[in-house]
Amino acid sequence: MSREHVRPADIERSSMQIISGELEQRGILLPPETAPVVKRVIHTTADFDYAENLVFTPDAVGQGVRALSGGAVIVTDTNMARAGISRPGLEKLHGQSVCFMADADVAETARRRGTTRAAAAMEKAARLHPGAVLAVGNAPTALFQIAEQMEAGLRPALVIGVPVGFVNVAESKETIFRLCREKGVPAVVALGRKGGSGVAAAICNALIYMAAGLLDPADRSW
Amino acid sequence: MSREHVRPADIERSSMQIISGELEQRGILLPPETAPVVKRVIHTTADFDYAENLVFTPDAVGQGVRALSGGAVIVTDTNMARAGISRPGLEKLHGQSVCFMADADVAETARRRGTTRAAAAMEKAARLHPGAVLAVGNAPTALFQIAEQMEAGLRPALVIGVPVGFVNVAESKETIFRLCREKGVPAVVALGRKGGSGVAAAICNALIYMAAGLLDPADRSW
Repeated sequence: MSREHVRPADIERSSMQIISGELEQRGILLPPETAPVVKRVIHTTADFDYAENLVFTPDAVGQGVRALSGGAVIVTDTNMARAGISRPGLEKLHGQSVCFMADADVAETARRRGTTRAAAAMEKAARLHPGAVLAVGNAPTALFQIAEQMEAGLRPALVIGVPVGFVNVAESKETIFRLCREKGVPAVVALGRKGGSGVAAAICNALIYMAAGLLDPADRSW
Repeated sequence: MSREHVRPADIERSSMQIISGELEQRGILLPPETAPVVKRVIHTTADFDYAENLVFTPDAVGQGVRALSGGAVIVTDTNMARAGISRPGLEKLHGQSVCFMADADVAETARRRGTTRAAAAMEKAARLHPGAVLAVGNAPTALFQIAEQMEAGLRPALVIGVPVGFVNVAESKETIFRLCREKGVPAVVALGRKGGSGVAAAICNALIYMAAGLLDPADRSW
């Protein structure tokens, strides 16, 4: 079928042009700094709500890109988000992604303390990778744990706070965004209910592609 | 923090009750057969559009559940979707999920024929697992490949067609849904642009939980 012979890069370019066109039609003008991140999330979800939901601390994108260029580890709260992160992109940066959710010691810590595995996994991340990019697409308890660690002095390279859900989720994202602004920690957060592992991975990938020089900044379609 | 001590099962029950309440407020009455699938997708995305987008061939849910109860393999088009499928649920069913996207022979076939890896991966799936549940959350070319295989006689246990995107995506889903109806193959499809690996995994999980008896059918909150 001829459809199968279209190059993936061309499909992505066409998609980004459609997204840019529809944002314009909706009267939404994205700042050039954050546009590549917002557009990649819309590309991943086909949901233009993210043009309004996504909030960034000042220079969050620049700081995230510099951290990844410098080899910062990405910690995700689910193996699903980790599976969505571009392996070729990370390899180009000599980067690394990790997820501690399925670790036996994390399950044990969670059981002992009566917390969630997501919270115990983020505690482990804070201990092993204190300067990491922390990407949370699922568990609000992971964000509350990061907030606790930040109160105790943790300074991640970037917090990506995009869990999805109906209970404690919007609150967890407001809490972490406020705290990140206070403490001067870069953050990208999807306010409200929406988000997910795919959104977390898409934000990581946008930053990875920028850090790896895989997006041409002169190409206005991104 | 007290928030961390809420049991995950309670959070899920509360979420499903909120979703049911909002569906009612919107005047949307889901058929009991498909409600657990639609609600789980909304739970995964916080996007009520899926109450309108998701379409099912007659008895698709029942046939999918019976196939999984009988040990049907789940083939996904991305490792991300596969990572989102419930491992405890699959274990309870003695089931198995596979993804061929990263296989060396698939890359070689795609290169030789000038097709996508997603299409080559689905061709391999049709060969190795002709009676599988095929779950496509990313690549429209995977759906076009399944359509070609079905024209040549393939009869999957169920086709889950929920790729996301702006180019060829809506068309691929209309094509597969029409063909599945014609050929009597059960299908769940998200019409339009929306979908994704998380949506594909959520649909698999709803069916797995039903097949494994992990959802109480008398519990109207699901």
